[in-house]
Amino acid sequence: MLSLCALDWKPRLVGFFTDETKAVFRTNVNELGEIPVLEHGDMRLSQTGVILSYLADRTGSFAGRNAEERLEILRWILFDNHRFSSYFATLRFMVGLRKTGETPVTEFLRTQALASFAVVEDHLNRQPFLVGDRPTIADISMVGYRYYDEDTGIDFTRFPRMKAWTERIKALSGWAHPYDLLPRASVPATS
Amino acid sequence: MLSLCALDWKPRLVGFFTDETKAVFRTNVNELGEIPVLEHGDMRLSQTGVILSYLADRTGSFAGRNAEERLEILRWILFDNHRFSSYFATLRFMVGLRKTGETPVTEFLRTQALASFAVVEDHLNRQPFLVGDRPTIADISMVGYRYYDEDTGIDFTRFPRMKAWTERIKALSGWAHPYDLLPRASVPATS
Repeated sequence: MLSLCALDWKPRLVGFFTDETKAVFRTNVNELGEIPVLEHGDMRLSQTGVILSYLADRTGSFAGRNAEERLEILRWILFDNHRFSSYFATLRFMVGLRKTGETPVTEFLRTQALASFAVVEDHLNRQPFLVGDRPTIADISMVGYRYYDEDTGIDFTRFPRMKAWTERIKALSGWAHPYDLLPRASVPATS
Repeated sequence: MLSLCALDWKPRLVGFFTDETKAVFRTNVNELGEIPVLEHGDMRLSQTGVILSYLADRTGSFAGRNAEERLEILRWILFDNHRFSSYFATLRFMVGLRKTGETPVTEFLRTQALASFAVVEDHLNRQPFLVGDRPTIADISMVGYRYYDEDTGIDFTRFPRMKAWTERIKALSGWAHPYDLLPRASVPATS
């Protein structure tokens, strides 16, 4: 979002959390113990959906044009947090980064992720973006994890509409791969 | 929220989903395949956070008083969807309603739920409600599942601040237990 809006920003590396560093981060930065966090002047915002809403309001970019669109955008962002990126992100972390191998939990997460992907595939069969005919912060929230290609045991050729959607977002001016925008901490393999 | 705001509403029973009824529901009511859905005039809204935001805007009740509070409310509603009610709701469904017994998945869900409960317990140690000094839709979103007491293997005496918070919400005019507000469909046990 920051890059798509051509805003002046810089990332800050947050090292991979240990219990100790997480406690410090919770106390000093974000009690939820999560990234991302956006600092802007005196504001410190957390939760992707909050940050995107703030930036859309401030810039007018990727925002809803009326109350109805804003509610529809919120709907997809909530779905994203509940089922779309959330299950997939945990699956990717376990299978793709921590290399846990296949477990009942990764199977559960994959089943949940696939069910949410089917909803989005079906929706994108009817329209090019999630809300209306142009990209909004709903797309930006939801598309992020689609650019990570670590193996998660999911065959994405089953979702051609989602693939075309990621390409449409990728074609926007200012788009860059998340790995090229953010410093990366190494992830310890499971002991 | 509808009852706390003394609005004129009535619930409609949605039977427990089979693949077939879910397909019909998706096509005719909510493509996300989920309840709750609010119908109001020509509006049909889904996702609890959307419905609460709409009602707060319309009634002025339980709403944020300024942009900063509204972002803070959104932050907790997103946390609720991502980690607080979501993991617990699935755990309750499996262990408390479907009686699956203990599995690696229920253990995973319980661990996630407990981590999110610790965040809220800590927050409520500093203030009586989630945002500011009075109840908002953030509380209403998050407190709902706290009134279900099916066994989920979680010892809630570990969370006295959350308990006091549920009592504060329960004391509001118009509060009623969800089982007294909504018609209940039976849940088939696991085959």
